[in-house]
Amino acid sequence: MKQVEKKKVRQPRGLMIMSALGQFKADLVLKNANVLNVFTGEFMPRDVAINGDTIIGIGEYEGTYEYDLSGMYIVPGFIDAHVHIESSMLTPQIFTREVLKRGTTTLIADPHEIANVCGEDGLKYMLDAAAECPVNLYYMMPSCVPAGDFDTAGAVLDAAALAKYANHPSVLGLGEVMNTAGIMRCESDLYQKLALFHSKTIDGHAPMMHGKALQTYRLAGITTDHECTSGEEAAEKLRAGLALLIREGSGARNLDSLIQILIDGRMQTQRIAFCTDDKHVDDIRTEGHIDHHIRRSIQLGLDPATAYLMASWYPAQIYGLKHLGAVAAGYQADLVVLKSLYDVQPKMVLHKGKTACSLLEKAPRVSIAPAVCDTVHIAPVKRSDLRLRINKDPVPVIVPIPRQIITKRVNEHVHVRNGYFVSDACHQKVAVIERHHASGNIGLGIIRGFLRTGAIAATVGHDAHNLIVIGTNDTDMLLAIHALNESGGGYVIVKDQSIVAGIELEIAGLMSTHSADELCRELALFTQAAKDIGIPQDMDPYQTLSFLPLPVLPGLRVTDKGLLDASSGNFLTY
Amino acid sequence: MKQVEKKKVRQPRGLMIMSALGQFKADLVLKNANVLNVFTGEFMPRDVAINGDTIIGIGEYEGTYEYDLSGMYIVPGFIDAHVHIESSMLTPQIFTREVLKRGTTTLIADPHEIANVCGEDGLKYMLDAAAECPVNLYYMMPSCVPAGDFDTAGAVLDAAALAKYANHPSVLGLGEVMNTAGIMRCESDLYQKLALFHSKTIDGHAPMMHGKALQTYRLAGITTDHECTSGEEAAEKLRAGLALLIREGSGARNLDSLIQILIDGRMQTQRIAFCTDDKHVDDIRTEGHIDHHIRRSIQLGLDPATAYLMASWYPAQIYGLKHLGAVAAGYQADLVVLKSLYDVQPKMVLHKGKTACSLLEKAPRVSIAPAVCDTVHIAPVKRSDLRLRINKDPVPVIVPIPRQIITKRVNEHVHVRNGYFVSDACHQKVAVIERHHASGNIGLGIIRGFLRTGAIAATVGHDAHNLIVIGTNDTDMLLAIHALNESGGGYVIVKDQSIVAGIELEIAGLMSTHSADELCRELALFTQAAKDIGIPQDMDPYQTLSFLPLPVLPGLRVTDKGLLDASSGNFLTY
Repeated sequence: MKQVEKKKVRQPRGLMIMSALGQFKADLVLKNANVLNVFTGEFMPRDVAINGDTIIGIGEYEGTYEYDLSGMYIVPGFIDAHVHIESSMLTPQIFTREVLKRGTTTLIADPHEIANVCGEDGLKYMLDAAAECPVNLYYMMPSCVPAGDFDTAGAVLDAAALAKYANHPSVLGLGEVMNTAGIMRCESDLYQKLALFHSKTIDGHAPMMHGKALQTYRLAGITTDHECTSGEEAAEKLRAGLALLIREGSGARNLDSLIQILIDGRMQTQRIAFCTDDKHVDDIRTEGHIDHHIRRSIQLGLDPATAYLMASWYPAQIYGLKHLGAVAAGYQADLVVLKSLYDVQPKMVLHKGKTACSLLEKAPRVSIAPAVCDTVHIAPVKRSDLRLRINKDPVPVIVPIPRQIITKRVNEHVHVRNGYFVSDACHQKVAVIERHHASGNIGLGIIRGFLRTGAIAATVGHDAHNLIVIGTNDTDMLLAIHALNESGGGYVIVKDQSIVAGIELEIAGLMSTHSADELCRELALFTQAAKDIGIPQDMDPYQTLSFLPLPVLPGLRVTDKGLLDASSGNFLTY
Repeated sequence: MKQVEKKKVRQPRGLMIMSALGQFKADLVLKNANVLNVFTGEFMPRDVAINGDTIIGIGEYEGTYEYDLSGMYIVPGFIDAHVHIESSMLTPQIFTREVLKRGTTTLIADPHEIANVCGEDGLKYMLDAAAECPVNLYYMMPSCVPAGDFDTAGAVLDAAALAKYANHPSVLGLGEVMNTAGIMRCESDLYQKLALFHSKTIDGHAPMMHGKALQTYRLAGITTDHECTSGEEAAEKLRAGLALLIREGSGARNLDSLIQILIDGRMQTQRIAFCTDDKHVDDIRTEGHIDHHIRRSIQLGLDPATAYLMASWYPAQIYGLKHLGAVAAGYQADLVVLKSLYDVQPKMVLHKGKTACSLLEKAPRVSIAPAVCDTVHIAPVKRSDLRLRINKDPVPVIVPIPRQIITKRVNEHVHVRNGYFVSDACHQKVAVIERHHASGNIGLGIIRGFLRTGAIAATVGHDAHNLIVIGTNDTDMLLAIHALNESGGGYVIVKDQSIVAGIELEIAGLMSTHSADELCRELALFTQAAKDIGIPQDMDPYQTLSFLPLPVLPGLRVTDKGLLDASSGNFLTY
């Protein structure tokens, strides 16, 4: 494995010491700004002196280059404490350019999605990519690959596999432990993983967990959680000793309901940070990244200094990043210059002492390892494979819920011809096709009111990322399956036997090799095409498709193994 | 080197998980107490469930053993963030028993003194002793052995020597970097030491340092300071990014002047902890250890929860002790039960789930390595070696200042006979004799008004710990030197050519092998004898003797190399 070795920009020590002592000009001095002191929570008028990639002193300094920042504020670069980069559909190299502009200089990413497709090849690809990114890109090693037994993932990462990465300099700990049952059941491989990362940070994932289960989860060594949806849940988890990551993504939006207990002063904030978890690039462009968390928190009434601390110093403490999160001597020169603390529009962003403008001037270098391409391997799908025999009436039907990733189950009468289900205006067919090992596994289901004509398909389907297709007729569905098999993965819409829109996700069937601009254009066209085939305006086509197979969400799910009642854990028949 | 391997008391995982889930009784449950939640600063009515050495859950629990603690408080065991155990004159095994009774369950010790005498043998002795102590005993590796060029220490610990200990499980970082000039001058060996402990904690020692020097000190990677004497100094150091350790020892008392900025709410407290630095066992017995810091802070007006956090959770964070400092699931069962938050009188102390009473029931096991005994090696001292030729008038004279470790310089006429100094009621002779390598180095000086008759001598003399003797006549001085040479070190008082009191410090000439009770008796007798030979009541004989040779304090000093004007760095002649 290639170690992350960025070009060293650290200066000879003697020069730095002399500059810090004021005996020699610093390389760069940001003068007369109001600097956030993360240790005391004060904004103080100071100069910030920088040599190379390091802040060498705060006070009064002279520099070879000087910027007068009178009337401006300096805060530390923002940290996204938990993100799945794959959900942006961008490569790390491209994604990080997008968020850098908005002040994010550090990402703590969990490559759970690509690992479920490519296993260690996926980990290596993401770890290697870090060297080509203009931010600090750290990783948590995915703890739950595969996520469970209800579907077929592309890879298995057991404790022996993860052990190879435990001491990698870019690895901060173990990724979200969704296998909460495994904790309670003392599963040996899971506890081996916990032991590997015992001295580091271990992310949790425990929606609604409380009481003794929560105590047990904490006892096992879990240190964070990003699944809180209410102030009460947050308070109990904080009291149990978990650090909280407040999530605002494209789907899950928890900030408004969690921030209130902080504004009231009912809870201390030192163990709280911000994260996006999953956020699409178009949402980042329109709404923001961590800057959005800060802006919204202050709008809701949070003290500005606290909001900026939750975006920098606090996550640095939670994840043991000793050189990040502060504008102070000895810390890496990652900072954001703002005209207003309230609108959070960066006037300048520095990463390792270099401006975002200069870092983004060069075209991105995007190395793509062959090992993470060509990941769609399906057994030939025949028309008969998509036939759904109906043996009862009514049958279980999936009802997607607008703007949510959970679904509802209903039992309804559906249209049947010669013993087989037939799509109509009300009901459409769902198929999930195992796409890693060409096993031929196909699971079928029925969904209500998702589209009027044609078919839509994707190779993004949490967490196993099999191929999912929803359609009104088998011909279009087969074409969609065929198209994704040919293209190496992505999203596709078929109508009247022709492909009308598509997004190629060449890397693991999850990420595009295109630029953010191109991807945004493709997304816009695809969204329009989704409307054209009748997907309701209030239904996010990407999200509905990609979360429909996820077995850990409640309600009805379709996996490559069949129709699953995730609430009971039983597969159902028709 | 023997690794610290305490007997494992950790239980089988399955049993702990089942107990945490409430499916099985816990070993021990402390019921109905007001438990300090360090994550939120709240006291909450809860049961604390413990299996083996670990807290497994907070909530409602049943246990095989249960204590009803209605009306009581539970707080985490106290942490002394910086202590030189040698200053207690007790072995680590005995010292830790004393402080455990008072609620201290963790010590972060700097074996600077024994290292100056015995080098690596001293480090090994202290590291090995940790396994025989009923507390968590961690070490910072002494950064400044020898402390300077003005005297002769017993050993040199360069970066290569310290490298062997950088990954020892009991080592948390680098000990106080007193060589502040070395930081500014970019001394190579010092920066190698800093690099070795870069990812750990690096203690500072920077009295009155401020401005650009302070920024430079922080830039070099220093993370703490325990030398603040005013609120202003504390505020600047906190703002620079140093964590503060508030010191209350036998000599230096900084709490009252530092606590005010915290009471005013002008500073956040998360980066502040308590330490004793140097505290004699009799002071600990009469006044307390970290319990004294807490009691006094609350008396001065600090919020009780904050005081207890500064004694537990905050130092655990500063030193990266992930399993300590909280009463919460997954943390080590180190806690203190109190009837009152104000008087801080422990009703029960638990360390690793065992009561202090049970831990102290057994007689202490004190292994003494031969390598740290027999450390007094002096060249034969003849009467003529103590003769002090006087060539000028007046001559520089040391004036000790009551209750302080600093001295004043005056120039005075002294009694001279045949060209040599003669003691009288006003002036006495000081001799410092190199005692490590039998080099024959002897430094001589004159002190005013320290004693009326006889001689007093010690092998405790910061930081080189050479033999220091002060006397009214050479005969008694020679006997005192002889006595310490014979006994292997300690303190001795001679009057009329006979030894009238003595404290044997067999280990490195610094620590007694006796029990705390015995040592306290010896100290009381010695203190009385010191009065009998005329040492003024307001002068601490131990402290005056042991700090008189310290070259880093201002004023006149005597080292084995001669009379030093420490303020100018020049040796003086008579």
